[in-house]
Amino acid sequence: MTDFRDTMFTTPEMSGIFSGRTLVQRMLDFEAALARAQARAGMMPAAAAEAIGAKCRVDFFDVDGLFRDGAEAGTLAVPLVGKLTDLVGGEAKKFVHWGTTTQDAVDTAVMLQIKDGLDLLIGRLLEIGAACASLAERHRRTPMAGRTFLQHAVPITFGLKAARWLGLSTRLVRKLRTLGADTLAVQLGGAAGTLAGMGDHGVRVMELLAEELGLAVPDLPWHTERDRMAEVAGALGVVAGGMGKIAGDLALLSQIEVGEVFTGDTATKGRSSTMPHKRNPVEAAAAAASARLAIGMVSIVLSSAVQEHERAAGAWQAEWQAIPDLFRFTAGAVEWMYRALSNLHVYADRMRVNLEHTRGQIMAEALTMALAARLGRPEAYRIVQRASDRAAQRGISLHEAAAEDEEIRGAISPERLERVFEFSGYLGSTEALIDRALEGFRALREQTRAR
Amino acid sequence: MTDFRDTMFTTPEMSGIFSGRTLVQRMLDFEAALARAQARAGMMPAAAAEAIGAKCRVDFFDVDGLFRDGAEAGTLAVPLVGKLTDLVGGEAKKFVHWGTTTQDAVDTAVMLQIKDGLDLLIGRLLEIGAACASLAERHRRTPMAGRTFLQHAVPITFGLKAARWLGLSTRLVRKLRTLGADTLAVQLGGAAGTLAGMGDHGVRVMELLAEELGLAVPDLPWHTERDRMAEVAGALGVVAGGMGKIAGDLALLSQIEVGEVFTGDTATKGRSSTMPHKRNPVEAAAAAASARLAIGMVSIVLSSAVQEHERAAGAWQAEWQAIPDLFRFTAGAVEWMYRALSNLHVYADRMRVNLEHTRGQIMAEALTMALAARLGRPEAYRIVQRASDRAAQRGISLHEAAAEDEEIRGAISPERLERVFEFSGYLGSTEALIDRALEGFRALREQTRAR
Amino acid sequence: MTDFRDTMFTTPEMSGIFSGRTLVQRMLDFEAALARAQARAGMMPAAAAEAIGAKCRVDFFDVDGLFRDGAEAGTLAVPLVGKLTDLVGGEAKKFVHWGTTTQDAVDTAVMLQIKDGLDLLIGRLLEIGAACASLAERHRRTPMAGRTFLQHAVPITFGLKAARWLGLSTRLVRKLRTLGADTLAVQLGGAAGTLAGMGDHGVRVMELLAEELGLAVPDLPWHTERDRMAEVAGALGVVAGGMGKIAGDLALLSQIEVGEVFTGDTATKGRSSTMPHKRNPVEAAAAAASARLAIGMVSIVLSSAVQEHERAAGAWQAEWQAIPDLFRFTAGAVEWMYRALSNLHVYADRMRVNLEHTRGQIMAEALTMALAARLGRPEAYRIVQRASDRAAQRGISLHEAAAEDEEIRGAISPERLERVFEFSGYLGSTEALIDRALEGFRALREQTRAR
Amino acid sequence: MTDFRDTMFTTPEMSGIFSGRTLVQRMLDFEAALARAQARAGMMPAAAAEAIGAKCRVDFFDVDGLFRDGAEAGTLAVPLVGKLTDLVGGEAKKFVHWGTTTQDAVDTAVMLQIKDGLDLLIGRLLEIGAACASLAERHRRTPMAGRTFLQHAVPITFGLKAARWLGLSTRLVRKLRTLGADTLAVQLGGAAGTLAGMGDHGVRVMELLAEELGLAVPDLPWHTERDRMAEVAGALGVVAGGMGKIAGDLALLSQIEVGEVFTGDTATKGRSSTMPHKRNPVEAAAAAASARLAIGMVSIVLSSAVQEHERAAGAWQAEWQAIPDLFRFTAGAVEWMYRALSNLHVYADRMRVNLEHTRGQIMAEALTMALAARLGRPEAYRIVQRASDRAAQRGISLHEAAAEDEEIRGAISPERLERVFEFSGYLGSTEALIDRALEGFRALREQTRAR
Repeated sequence: MTDFRDTMFTTPEMSGIFSGRTLVQRMLDFEAALARAQARAGMMPAAAAEAIGAKCRVDFFDVDGLFRDGAEAGTLAVPLVGKLTDLVGGEAKKFVHWGTTTQDAVDTAVMLQIKDGLDLLIGRLLEIGAACASLAERHRRTPMAGRTFLQHAVPITFGLKAARWLGLSTRLVRKLRTLGADTLAVQLGGAAGTLAGMGDHGVRVMELLAEELGLAVPDLPWHTERDRMAEVAGALGVVAGGMGKIAGDLALLSQIEVGEVFTGDTATKGRSSTMPHKRNPVEAAAAAASARLAIGMVSIVLSSAVQEHERAAGAWQAEWQAIPDLFRFTAGAVEWMYRALSNLHVYADRMRVNLEHTRGQIMAEALTMALAARLGRPEAYRIVQRASDRAAQRGISLHEAAAEDEEIRGAISPERLERVFEFSGYLGSTEALIDRALEGFRALREQTRAR
Repeated sequence: MTDFRDTMFTTPEMSGIFSGRTLVQRMLDFEAALARAQARAGMMPAAAAEAIGAKCRVDFFDVDGLFRDGAEAGTLAVPLVGKLTDLVGGEAKKFVHWGTTTQDAVDTAVMLQIKDGLDLLIGRLLEIGAACASLAERHRRTPMAGRTFLQHAVPITFGLKAARWLGLSTRLVRKLRTLGADTLAVQLGGAAGTLAGMGDHGVRVMELLAEELGLAVPDLPWHTERDRMAEVAGALGVVAGGMGKIAGDLALLSQIEVGEVFTGDTATKGRSSTMPHKRNPVEAAAAAASARLAIGMVSIVLSSAVQEHERAAGAWQAEWQAIPDLFRFTAGAVEWMYRALSNLHVYADRMRVNLEHTRGQIMAEALTMALAARLGRPEAYRIVQRASDRAAQRGISLHEAAAEDEEIRGAISPERLERVFEFSGYLGSTEALIDRALEGFRALREQTRAR
Repeated sequence: MTDFRDTMFTTPEMSGIFSGRTLVQRMLDFEAALARAQARAGMMPAAAAEAIGAKCRVDFFDVDGLFRDGAEAGTLAVPLVGKLTDLVGGEAKKFVHWGTTTQDAVDTAVMLQIKDGLDLLIGRLLEIGAACASLAERHRRTPMAGRTFLQHAVPITFGLKAARWLGLSTRLVRKLRTLGADTLAVQLGGAAGTLAGMGDHGVRVMELLAEELGLAVPDLPWHTERDRMAEVAGALGVVAGGMGKIAGDLALLSQIEVGEVFTGDTATKGRSSTMPHKRNPVEAAAAAASARLAIGMVSIVLSSAVQEHERAAGAWQAEWQAIPDLFRFTAGAVEWMYRALSNLHVYADRMRVNLEHTRGQIMAEALTMALAARLGRPEAYRIVQRASDRAAQRGISLHEAAAEDEEIRGAISPERLERVFEFSGYLGSTEALIDRALEGFRALREQTRAR
Repeated sequence: MTDFRDTMFTTPEMSGIFSGRTLVQRMLDFEAALARAQARAGMMPAAAAEAIGAKCRVDFFDVDGLFRDGAEAGTLAVPLVGKLTDLVGGEAKKFVHWGTTTQDAVDTAVMLQIKDGLDLLIGRLLEIGAACASLAERHRRTPMAGRTFLQHAVPITFGLKAARWLGLSTRLVRKLRTLGADTLAVQLGGAAGTLAGMGDHGVRVMELLAEELGLAVPDLPWHTERDRMAEVAGALGVVAGGMGKIAGDLALLSQIEVGEVFTGDTATKGRSSTMPHKRNPVEAAAAAASARLAIGMVSIVLSSAVQEHERAAGAWQAEWQAIPDLFRFTAGAVEWMYRALSNLHVYADRMRVNLEHTRGQIMAEALTMALAARLGRPEAYRIVQRASDRAAQRGISLHEAAAEDEEIRGAISPERLERVFEFSGYLGSTEALIDRALEGFRALREQTRAR
């Protein structure tokens, strides 16, 4: 743990799942499960499989040494299998790594890591969902400015914004879950994908191995067809992008001039080394940084999907770094957003103050629609634009400018005009949409419990 | 059509689907469908919707002009809606673009383009599958060298290689199809996602609009939650990577020294401007280039998923270019691979000649496994490595070196040794795996017909 | 001109330089110059070179047809050289494309485009510099909030912010200019880089060709050593990133709640299709989008620098699209920033109002430094943090909180405390730094004039 | 050292330069140098600077703890400065971190790391150059097939190929060296770039600090103008791409069917875990993987150049990971290529055998040019294409086919025809080009010694 890769930009859990040490353990899990599968298929005595399994514990191995020797050998499997064979000894050692190859061990091990990694992400995303659901519920009628192009557009509520994050989180969980069936499959092909080293038992062993490890049976070995890895990478990229979006919103809402939310607790977090008053939105910054890093990893994995023949000379190896780092960084983004959202300070009063910032201009569309009912949208748009310009030039509110406007006065009554400028009167389907998001999340959670 | 973006790196069909002209038409389709949906919801007279729909044809518009004016306005919708309003005229013009916004029109239009684009890709991928299935069937017993790290590993058959491409294509189709349900949704939120301009009718109109356009109903408007776009992009990146993989294999197999396949037809394709004898694997090169370009687009889309508040100032606009180009280039990669694979010359004799290249060393694992049955894998590995080194040093075949080796002779008979060096005897589960791939494709096709 | 690639995300000039049509012209320029160079080297009669040159005009060619046929042939050069040969006819046609190859023609043509493209960018960046210089000068004493993590830090002046953009623009111009000497070189190697088709004349012709075209003489042909292209791409990526930075600042400063600048002119720009009051910072958004697109192109070019042997099958072809698009998009980013900065509305009053937003907290560091002179920085930091927290809790200004604090009162006088809270008193080296930026730009301009 | 990031994909030296531990030391170097500079400027007693400097040693710090606490604080500087202050104690502690900020410390520290990192890369690239120069010299007349699109084009020599790699390495060194002057600058701006905490001394301290640390004086503080970082990243991307290119060539040349080079030593390197005969080009694979990873980092750095206001919330933090990893991976690519090239086995006999592979077709251009002298290039091209097709169809050599062709016989004598098919006779400027590369490298080395 010597730099931010394992602290700021990830979580200890994810860092653990994708550590070199865990990779070694997962490769050993593969070797042990393969032996068991082969024993079940009648390829070796059960005792041999047991003897092998007994040594498949990372504690027996010098992990740093393996990564040093593996770097020289070009693969972790060569030193690992050598050492494992020595450890097993006796008759059983004959059966170690039987009919398999480096790539089987590494790819399957990574799939096991990926499975754990996805579970971890899904768990946290569900908690993000819960936090957003609570915000959506609580602030369903807390009006704030809707902002497009960073400009005030029309009113929304903070609950709707949280509901959109909720919908996003819900969809992200659903997306990660779709990866299970086809994607998280064992790799077993032997040297070049024919399973020749296992005689006629190959496909059967592949099935048993999958069963042993709780992974899917692939249609075929996939040494150089990396769509599964690319798919996982793409999915994590979507998650990272989603977290980056929420992080960005939080940072913007935390600006001094906006002040609508504050993400940190208070004691030490986000202090400046030189400015005693500062409280930085460090959760948002750390999430945004992690998301950027994650997205960079995706493009490495995607462009490394072009792999030669039956095993690649470079592109595959790049995955060894890019996939673990991708999970690390995505977990960082998710974690920081979890922390921010589960402890978010929301300042409804500032939201209201900001809504007034444009002196009613934020209700220009509302006014347009009110007029449009009589004059049609194009004509209404023209009239309101004129009033809006006049208001801006004369420094009066749009309400005042509208009240002075002959055409507007001709079209709607002063009472109606009054109501047009109530924020709560122009929220359209806001609550219905919030309900849809809450409902989607509820369904997801029930489905989760049922699993 | 003035550069390779619209010729070499795509197809005319995909170029057409994502042309500026089609985008305009799809935006008009949105406006027309919105009017119909609103009429059904009682928000406007059916006659108005009809009058609007009648003008929603791109032929009435100056497309180049729209893109010029749209660049100034920062959005295509402003000039388009203005012009449409003028065209509609009369009473109906009051109802044009009612309660909606630029983003609704653009995002929904792009979704319609995406839907067509995906269909096109799926169609071609199915044809690639058919070509691969035919190759897999025909060459299921055509032995060739399996190559890892670009070195000979163990024998495979060309049918197995084709079956892996087939499995890949099958999975790619399945993946693209999973995008339908959640992903290809209409966008309808109005100015900032509240649907305020439609009073109480918002959600109902959203549902009707989806029905009109054959798209899914989203849980919520998704102006700045871009997971759907990112998901589409990721999926296309997976497709592009897969095509790049096949293209790379074809280029490598086409090398003069390898000569196992040839991708072109004959007459003019792939000629050099200066070397009269040359026939370049231009299909592979064009596919590889297209795939690279596509993958570059993916990272633009993914990193553009971080969008501010209720509409982004920059990231959204980048999608306007990146998504169409992503489809263009992916289609290019798919098309060139379709052309290469559906007309592939396979030279089984060269495959066999190349298999002999290592003078039996490619059977080293076969020999190891034969010995391992008696001596265990580690011991067998050691003995064969020694024989292999001796063969290489003395310039004799591995068979000869093995025949001389005391330990090997002690372990297996000369007849058994003879059989060890038959390529066809060490193909393991090759045919079973081919069958799995064929079966998977057959199921996919049946499912396709049933749709 | 059918989509935003050629309008919103670029300029007509850059679009013209990198159009397919111009590429054809530049390839013809190559063919003509090569003929002249070869004539000067005694390889062909001057009359032949003249006859060839006379036909090297794009008007004689069907550009669309070339791109269609070139897509089939895998290279533009085959149909182009064929057609040119026909056009030249007579004796001279014997000498067309003598001893050269597709790659020579394309790479050199692209270098000519790059040269023009760089000049265009440099010109606009100098104008951006001029606009920033004017802003820096005019607003050198206009105080505003310095913002870190989007929070108020300490006061700066708007002139300093503009000076930083100025320094950036100055460095970008200098960087682009360093590309000249080594980088913008002709490509001439013949089929595989030996210049064999030119007998002993190869190197001499390479030198003469460079002279004819105003490009550098490379050390060697560089068919597959793409460092030059990668270098150009990297440089444009730096430019795009710089423009994105300024665009981001402008968008943030334009927020309703901040309101310190406004980027547009007035009449129609940035209007919303539905909200009559809105004026979007479309320049910033378009620049940001263009910058994102450009940066995506850079990674395509960089990863395409891995090219096989003496000509690549895919990576080179990807450049054909990525490099022109990179220039297009970079030009878009530069142009929009030029337009924004050369017509920027600056609201000094809002800057001052915003400075007051934290009720003096923005002067916390100033207070710390004032105390630190007596108490040391750590102690001062502790005391001010306490006062700052108290001010926040009680809703009073930091000035008031400080005035009540025993330790602070013990350390500095009320008069000194008063002065601590003057923004203009805590600007440090602001003016000196502005002068440095202005001086750097002045030197660059003089050097420009001297060229 | 727990995964391949610090073994396979880098070197121990580069890993050391960019370790978290070294970062802490460089930040302490900054604090010490700042104190000295401020003492020289009269801002603190020399004794205080000395006392601070005495504690600026990483051994006094718990590095892991700093990265843990720094992750919480959002910056390494907060815990580091806190701890340093405690360590310094006494009167001097008042002056720790005087008038500066986190970003000054981090950015300057990273610049110091970058400087060391560049030196390391340059050193190794020069050794790569030396290895290539030796290969170019030794094999200047070793003919081999020039390959375009992976097909045989015309003969080259292996010396020319090595000379191209040499030219590339030479240019890469030159490029890295251009980074010095403007780019490797100290960062010193204080909280928001005004240097307000240093009163009038700011610019002077900036100059002295640069002097103390051996870095350049920037025009302005550059907290959020990241062109320098982007420039460094771009340059490393060019290096990585260059290494990837060489790695790719080596892997292709190492193919069994090509067999023209072998990159490894022999004993253990590149062994397979299952195939005893295999020797994989692990150097090429590891270099290719490292290069891919490096290029991925570049795009993170470039897209992170868009930073807000006076300090970024996310994009800056992403650099903390991406820049060190970029250096790590680039060093990995360089190192593996150094190892491969400095110990490369070249099989000139196989090169010659492969040249014969096309039965003389590789001399088609030579024949064309011989005929072109009489018939003009277009006519010659047509005739040779016909002969080439005939040779291919009838399975005879191009020489035989040419000897039978009436038109060819009419144009050149049998003796001339004989000479046309000598590889060594169609090498054009090969040796002159090799000399140019050698000369360029010689000049670079002399310039290096003179430094």
